[in-house]
Parts: sequence; C-alpha cells; structure tokens
Amino acid sequence: MKRVTHANSFALRSHTCGELRKSDVGRKVKLSGWVQFQRMNKFVLLRDAYGVTQLVVPDENQLTGDIEVILDDVEVLSSSISNLPFTVQESPKLLKIVRHHGFVDIETPTLFRRTPGGAQEFVVPTRTSGKFYSLVQSPQQFKQLLMIGGFDRYFQIARCYRDEGTKPNRQPEFTQVDIEMSFTTKENIQRLIEGLLNHVWPEDMGRIPIPFPEMTYKDAMKNYGVDKPDTRFDVLLQDVTELAKASEISRIFGTSEIVDFAAIALVFKDSAALISKSAEQSFLESAKMTTGKTNLSFVLNRIQDGNKWKSSLAKKLTQETMNSIGDRLGASAGDVVLLGLGPRESLVMEWWGALYSLHFEPRRETLLAVLNYGAIDVLTWILVPSMGKMRLEVANHLETLGVKLRSNSKNFLWVVDFPLFLPSEELDGGPLQSAHHPFTAPHPEDEHLLRSSPLDVRGLHYDLVLNGSEIGGGSIRIHQSDVQELVLKEILQEDPANLHHLLKALSCGAPPHGGIALGLDRLMSIICDTKSIRDVIAFPKSLDGKDLMSGAPSSISEKEKEMYHIGAVHNK
Amino acid sequence: MKRVTHANSFALRSHTCGELRKSDVGRKVKLSGWVQFQRMNKFVLLRDAYGVTQLVVPDENQLTGDIEVILDDVEVLSSSISNLPFTVQESPKLLKIVRHHGFVDIETPTLFRRTPGGAQEFVVPTRTSGKFYSLVQSPQQFKQLLMIGGFDRYFQIARCYRDEGTKPNRQPEFTQVDIEMSFTTKENIQRLIEGLLNHVWPEDMGRIPIPFPEMTYKDAMKNYGVDKPDTRFDVLLQDVTELAKASEISRIFGTSEIVDFAAIALVFKDSAALISKSAEQSFLESAKMTTGKTNLSFVLNRIQDGNKWKSSLAKKLTQETMNSIGDRLGASAGDVVLLGLGPRESLVMEWWGALYSLHFEPRRETLLAVLNYGAIDVLTWILVPSMGKMRLEVANHLETLGVKLRSNSKNFLWVVDFPLFLPSEELDGGPLQSAHHPFTAPHPEDEHLLRSSPLDVRGLHYDLVLNGSEIGGGSIRIHQSDVQELVLKEILQEDPANLHHLLKALSCGAPPHGGIALGLDRLMSIICDTKSIRDVIAFPKSLDGKDLMSGAPSSISEKEKEMYHIGAVHNK
Repeated sequence: MKRVTHANSFALRSHTCGELRKSDVGRKVKLSGWVQFQRMNKFVLLRDAYGVTQLVVPDENQLTGDIEVILDDVEVLSSSISNLPFTVQESPKLLKIVRHHGFVDIETPTLFRRTPGGAQEFVVPTRTSGKFYSLVQSPQQFKQLLMIGGFDRYFQIARCYRDEGTKPNRQPEFTQVDIEMSFTTKENIQRLIEGLLNHVWPEDMGRIPIPFPEMTYKDAMKNYGVDKPDTRFDVLLQDVTELAKASEISRIFGTSEIVDFAAIALVFKDSAALISKSAEQSFLESAKMTTGKTNLSFVLNRIQDGNKWKSSLAKKLTQETMNSIGDRLGASAGDVVLLGLGPRESLVMEWWGALYSLHFEPRRETLLAVLNYGAIDVLTWILVPSMGKMRLEVANHLETLGVKLRSNSKNFLWVVDFPLFLPSEELDGGPLQSAHHPFTAPHPEDEHLLRSSPLDVRGLHYDLVLNGSEIGGGSIRIHQSDVQELVLKEILQEDPANLHHLLKALSCGAPPHGGIALGLDRLMSIICDTKSIRDVIAFPKSLDGKDLMSGAPSSISEKEKEMYHIGAVHNK
Repeated sequence: MKRVTHANSFALRSHTCGELRKSDVGRKVKLSGWVQFQRMNKFVLLRDAYGVTQLVVPDENQLTGDIEVILDDVEVLSSSISNLPFTVQESPKLLKIVRHHGFVDIETPTLFRRTPGGAQEFVVPTRTSGKFYSLVQSPQQFKQLLMIGGFDRYFQIARCYRDEGTKPNRQPEFTQVDIEMSFTTKENIQRLIEGLLNHVWPEDMGRIPIPFPEMTYKDAMKNYGVDKPDTRFDVLLQDVTELAKASEISRIFGTSEIVDFAAIALVFKDSAALISKSAEQSFLESAKMTTGKTNLSFVLNRIQDGNKWKSSLAKKLTQETMNSIGDRLGASAGDVVLLGLGPRESLVMEWWGALYSLHFEPRRETLLAVLNYGAIDVLTWILVPSMGKMRLEVANHLETLGVKLRSNSKNFLWVVDFPLFLPSEELDGGPLQSAHHPFTAPHPEDEHLLRSSPLDVRGLHYDLVLNGSEIGGGSIRIHQSDVQELVLKEILQEDPANLHHLLKALSCGAPPHGGIALGLDRLMSIICDTKSIRDVIAFPKSLDGKDLMSGAPSSISEKEKEMYHIGAVHNK
C-alpha cells in the first residue's frame, strides 16, 4: 500500500505499520494499531490502516526478519472481545475535484419546496401544522437562480434525495457533482467535463481519450436498443425486416392473420458451441417475460456449414432468406444469430406492461419515448429495446464462459438529441411531460415546432454514458421567461405559480446558461469496478431503503408525532 | 476585483468585463454580460460577475476613455423586464479545506436513526407505515464507526440538521467541517485545527497567531460570565462580595430579611460622560428582564472626584465600602462601575425562567451547568452570566459611540474542562444528562469519580471560540465498550439498545480516537464580518425556518400523505 503523506502528524506514533523499511534499522519508533496475530508470546503482528509490522518480544536467541520491531514497552489501549464483523478495508480514494476555471463552490439548501414534474421527493414535516419541506432531488433551481444572480460559474458536490422505492443500484440519498455556467454552450460544457474527468481520473488506470464521441438518441436506440449503449463490443442490432419478408409470413407466425412484421437481428461470432441449450432457454424466456402478453418471437439460431440454421425457425424460412440474412450479418458457421420478430399490430392495452419491463432500470421517460418518439412505429420500438437487453445478457453470459468480448477501455459517450417532451403517462392522453425536466431548452433548429408539434422538438439535453451506465446528464436551460412560461403553462399544463420565483428571476435578464450533474457514486462504482454502488458508499442503505446497522427507518415517539402534527394513516 | 483564473474557458467570451487593460488596446475581444447603463445610444456599460466595461457604438467623433470597446456586433441574449430585486454580489470565497496529513474524505448518510440525547431531529416519513428516518444532527456516530473500522483519519464537509425552532443565528440545515482521528490526543487535535485554520485563513486578513490560548470553563464563567468569552477587551467580571459586605445589608436591599448576598462588578473606564441616562435605563432594564422575578439589583455608578459615586446606591453604601471597591477595581473619576447584587436565596421556581433567558443564545446545557456545576452556589451563577451579558451590551453600546474597545485581532480561544454531565432538565430530578453528547470521554484525572460523583467529572471536550462566538467543538471519545455502557446505562439511564451497533463496534477493539466539528457558516460569517450567518448562506431560511423565495415549507398533496401514511393531527 502506498504511504499516505504526513499520516503520522498529530498521532500517537512515529511511523505507520506499513512504513518501516530497511533504512530504519536501529531507529527507535512508536507504533499504534491492532494486534492481528500473536505467536508463542514472542511475535506480534501489529496492524493499522496502512500496513502490518512484526513486533518481537526481546529474547536471548533473537531472530530477526526483514523488518521487525523489538519491543521496549507496550500499552494496551483497548481490548477486543470479538473480531471485527468485516475486514478493515482500504478507503476508496474519493474523487478530488479541482476548483478549476474560476468555478465557485456554493452550498445550496436541501430542505426546499417540491419541484413539479420530477421524481418522488421525500417530505419533512415541520412544527407548523400541514406544512412540509421537500428534500431536494437536485439543486437544479438553485443553480439556475445563482446564474441569474450573476455568479457565472457554480460548482457543488451536492447531496440529493429521491424516494424511488425499491430499485436496484439506486439509493434514497446520493451525491452528485453539480456544475452550472453562464454564457456557454452544450459543446463548451462537454469539453469542460471531458477535461475534468481526464484530470481526476486515477493515474494508474491510464489516461482517458478525449473528446468523447457523441451519438444521437435515435442512433443509440437503433443500434444498441438502449439510450445508454455499452460500446465496448461491436455487436449491433440490425434491422432485417425486408430480408425476412422474402419468406412467407403465415409460415413464420403460424397464422394468416398477421399482415406485416418486423425483424431485428444480432450476431455473436463463434458462440454456437458455447451457448448451452439451457442458457438459450433462459435468454428466450427472459425476453418473453419482458414483452409479456405481446406475441413477439425470439429465436436463437446456430449457424452451420453452408449457412444452414439450426433452430425452430429454420423450417419456416426459405434457404434464400437465411442466405440473404446471413450475408447481410456476415454470419458464418459456428456463429449464433439471434432473431426477434414481431407483428406490427396496433397498440393495445396488453403492450403497456411490456413497455414497463423493457429496460434494466425502468425509466418512465425512456419507455414513453419508445412509444411515441418521432414517426417510428411502435412495434419496432418494443422489439428494439428487447433485443438491446438480450444483446447485454448474451454478452454477459459469454464473458462468464471466458470469452473476451468487451474491450478493457473506458468508453465514455455523449448521448444527445433526446426528445424534449414525451406523451402523457396515461394511456388515454393528457398533457405532455418533460423528458428530463421542464427547464431544458429546445434545440434551436426545432424551436419553431414548440407550439405546433412539440413531440418533434429535440432538447438541448446531453447524457454522459460510461460503459453502458449513465453517469451524468445536463442541458442548456431555457433562459427566456416567455419560453419557460410557454413550456410550463401551455405544453406541460403545470400551474406556473409553483415556479413563480423562477419565472420572476428569468425575467430579470437571465444570461444563457447550462450545466450538468455527474453521479459521483456511479462514477466511483465504475472506477472501482464494483458490482453495486452500495460498495462505494459508506453505510449504504439496503434495496428497500433500510440501514441494517442501526435499524433505520424506525418508530418515533408519540411526542414527536404531536410536535410535527402527524398521525399514522393506515392504508388498506 | 481580482481576476479569476481561467474564467473565460468554455464560455461565450474572450475576456471578462473586469479584465481588459491598456495592454489590450487594439485587440479584438468578445464580451458577455448585462447592460448596466446606456447613454445616448452611444455608450453602454456592460457588466458581468467580474467587472464593468464601457462599450462604444462607432461614431465619427469617437471619444475613447481609458478602456472602451468599440462595437462590431451585438446580440441580445435575454431582455430584462425588471431589474434584479437585489444587487449582483461577489460570491464569498468559500473555505478551501486542504486534504492534508492523509485525511480521507468520506461521505456519510443524512437519513439515519435518531441519536438519543441530542438536539431535536427532523423526521422523514417513509413508505413503510410508522417508520421514519431522522435527519442527522451530525455525523458523530459514523465518524466513530469509521475509526473503529480502521480508517484512521476522516474528514467531511457535512450537512447537518437541527430542528431548534426559532433561534437567532441558527438555521435548520447547516454545514460543518467534521474531522476524526485514531490514536490521537486532545492536544494533537488542537494543533491540527490551529494549523488548518492558519492555512485556510484569507491571506489579506493577516496570519493568525498559533497556538491558540486555552481557558477552563470555570475561568471563562468567572471572568467573562459566559462559556464563549470575547477576549478582545479586558473588562473582566470581579467578585466584590466581601468588600460590599462592609456596608449594611438591610440598607442595600431595603429589607432585613436578607442575610447573605453576592456582588459582581464591571468597570468601563472613562465612560461616565458617554453613557446617557436613557442608555443606562436600557441596560438595567435588560438585565432585570433576563433575571425576571428574582430580586437581583443592577446599578450603574458614575465615579466622580474623590471616589464619590453618583447613583441610587451611593447613599446605601458607606464611603469606606465605595473606596475599597473602587481601589480593588482601579476605578477613578470618569469611570463607570456596574454592580450586580443579589441575595443568596435558595432556588425557587421563579428562578427557572431567569436561567433560560440569561444567555444570548439560550443553550440548555450551559444553563443547566450554571445551576449545578461544582460547589459554586446558585446565586453567583445567576448573577455572573447576567453580568457577562451586560459586559457585552455596554461594550457594544460604547463602540457605537465611537469608543474603540475591542482590539482588531481574531481572538481564537480553546475552552476546556467542561463538566461531562449535567443535572436533569426537570427541576424535581431525574437521570443526569450529557453536557455535550454521550460519547465524550471523561478526563483521566476524574475517571474514578464516574460512579461516585459523576457531576464532578470533567470531560475531554473542547470548544473553539472566536471573538465570543463558538465556531467549533469536539472531544476525545470513549473507546472502551464498558465505559460507554456505564455512561449510557447507569448514568444517563438510556436504553443501550438504541446504540447497540455502536457498543458492538466499540467491543471490536476500538482505537482511542477523537475529533472536532467546525461550524463553516459561523466561521464564514466571522471572516466576512456579517451580522448574521444568513448573510453567508445561499438561499437561507428565515428565523422561523421559511424559504421566503419559494414559500417552503408548503402543503403536500393528499396522495403524498397517503403514500407516507401520515395524516394531519391538529393539536390544540
């Protein structure tokens, strides 16, 4: 372990237990630590946060190893009646954010008022009956207000809160690096973040290549079936609908009621022998499960010599179809071709459940976008994310078998040109919703469509993706009061009174501004290569929001309930 | 204003409006900002966060000042329909804490379980009926657990929450610098903090002298009448009881029922002519108000030639008494002697209210300490803090009149040797309470008194005081599980189950450890010389905890109340 600079200052020691070297032989030292091991009342391994040193109780027949400390005196500071329930770990080196480029670190409140149209926010009762704070889901409004107040460049490591119920890899409280700038552009913020990440990236992990590539939301969905593509392996989704149509539809689906369909393919090279029958079953069932009651089909085809397919589909497609698909995909003997097929039916209620389970981390916005984004038909956008999910599942499985599919690189990627609005969550309509939040500025090329065709307007939002995980997101904000009011009132049909303070501020000569937030926990988790963000959080909560150590959340006293004017409501 | 380094990177400008100099003449520049002033459609003052530059619309008869920018092109980015309701301010430069000496920055949760025996904590209802998080009042437990887990040196800029109702200069959420170390001592932590403050102190305010002086709690109370003395002026409280007793008690109090009394004096040199009759009235009334129904007297005496006192007391004291008091105090003609006198009665219910209003920032612990600390009698400890308060009031008044009483120095001071326990808040007894928190270690010299005489035990607590404000506090913690259990169970009579996790951890071989927390808002307020901490907090809450901008706290929806299983209870 590396020596930590000046770790002996202000401490009851002259050296850490990881510090003594041959050059220290003969020196009088003072160590503090835990007894890790004791042998024959003669050898003691003393351990601290930095290392282990062997102590020797003086003896006539002294044996000395490389570095040992001969004991003068010992003081037992504390005794341990049980061993630590977990091992002493090295503290993960937390990101050091440099206050570069004139950014000012400003702390903003967390006890605030609910922001309309975002995640579910925790509420905090007060001593005033019926009045509650909300715990902020992000410092969004504050950062914008600071820009309007003339602060120019703001930066904060901000604690945020979201009550998202049980979701994997999320915590009720988390930390993000928040940045906001006046008089800037999307590209400027991108370059800033690239430079920042490059600067803070651990040296021993190698430099990261900047600038990061950029991909539109449409291309991400089309090629990867997800808005946060893992680009470390180049298996792409391919639309083979037209090729598949050379075979008879009624043979493929076993019914003559279907008049049109779509087909999406994935090729995994040299995998036919690796994927067992039971693994195949598991992939197909998982895909079937996420698409639920819809009549989509997923087929795994093992390619054999002469482009013969080994699968239930082989008999339903003509050899010509298989040849043309195989040619298009560059598939050859020993490869696996995964095919997803689905009839182009009109949207029915049954599809709704499928939409909600299509993503690893179900995100309402993305699901809704899938439904209605642009002119692309619904079916393709249900099939595509299913195949996107299968792409990752098969890749993960092959890697557990020892296949090296992903590159070792850290693939940062900007995903841009998200839709600004999404249709209502309600099936029967209702006002549009913000894809991210109501403060994102429309793309200048689409601004004229705001009133006439809001669903076709792209936003100046950008997500930062690393190896298939979203680690940040931001946007250029609306800085004109009238545009913000149009969005709030006419498009989102929100009561502008809730954001009166922001609208007022925007009318005071707001500078053009934009910003970004990076999820520090996610980023750390990826840097440390941990399975869950819980592994990089001190005292994390469990999946259901419990602190297992202390038992929080817990009951409170009747006196407190009275103080906060709250009584328990037992819902059925 | 100083130029902020690299403030033009990633921005729509080449220079800030405060940056152009004579050496830039002839250069093509791009500026972004607000139009501060416009004259004759010809001159425009453009302002940004960094300064102001004059722009000139090109004209045949060009006039140029020192630095002007001749306009090529203008783009209006946003228009202001009203002026900002407040002026654009310079961002206060926030404390930069260096990660010195191997400290590791670890973020700890804020949604936690109630810590017994501290401040009132906000509660956060969850989706599980009857279960609540508490918002932490400090990361105290986490920092100790991290030490036990072997982290050795911890550091955090931590958000903390206290629901203290309406108190001046307090906020429901605030920020502190938290530090904890293993294998250390009180003195080591003091030296660390002194070095840290010296390092972060703004250069243009001059170096601060280290090490800081140390004062015991007893001496602070005796000489200054408060546990956070403002040592910038050397007017000290003086006990003149024995001297005053040379005069007849019944004359002084106008009754023969009083058999014993105490007298505390303060001298303000050369102030007799400065303090008006109405100011005098105001001091005395204020003192009378804080002592309430008690029969304490406060008298302001103007000293005249020949040590003649001009006051209502002059006739009640013999000239010999006035001479001896004057000699002791070194008072001479033109001075003011403030005298506080009170009968030594036994404690009655009426005194209780007086105790609660004796301090500027009423703090239960201090008030309780006043009542029972050591063997000092109750009366003295009611009189003394009253005089401590008057000391500051008169000093403040004299300074508004132009008297330079306080030095310009930043008087840091360690206050130590606080009592570890205090009597119950209930007048009729009950278990003892922690003076600070239940984790403070007893002073080694007093440890043997823990069971036999706990009120006589001093704690290893230290407060850091700057110019009469408490800016930090910390302690060496109890690191032995059995001592912690003794304190919790036998002395405080708390249910140890609530701290089972900490007791368990302490039994796993806890290292000796200690730490401190510095109030960042308080410190900034003193550095920036503001009247209130609200002036150094972005979006502060009002005295009654309201965010005046957004109107938080506010109502929540019935749906949310249902989600969190809370109904309004309307208390009478």
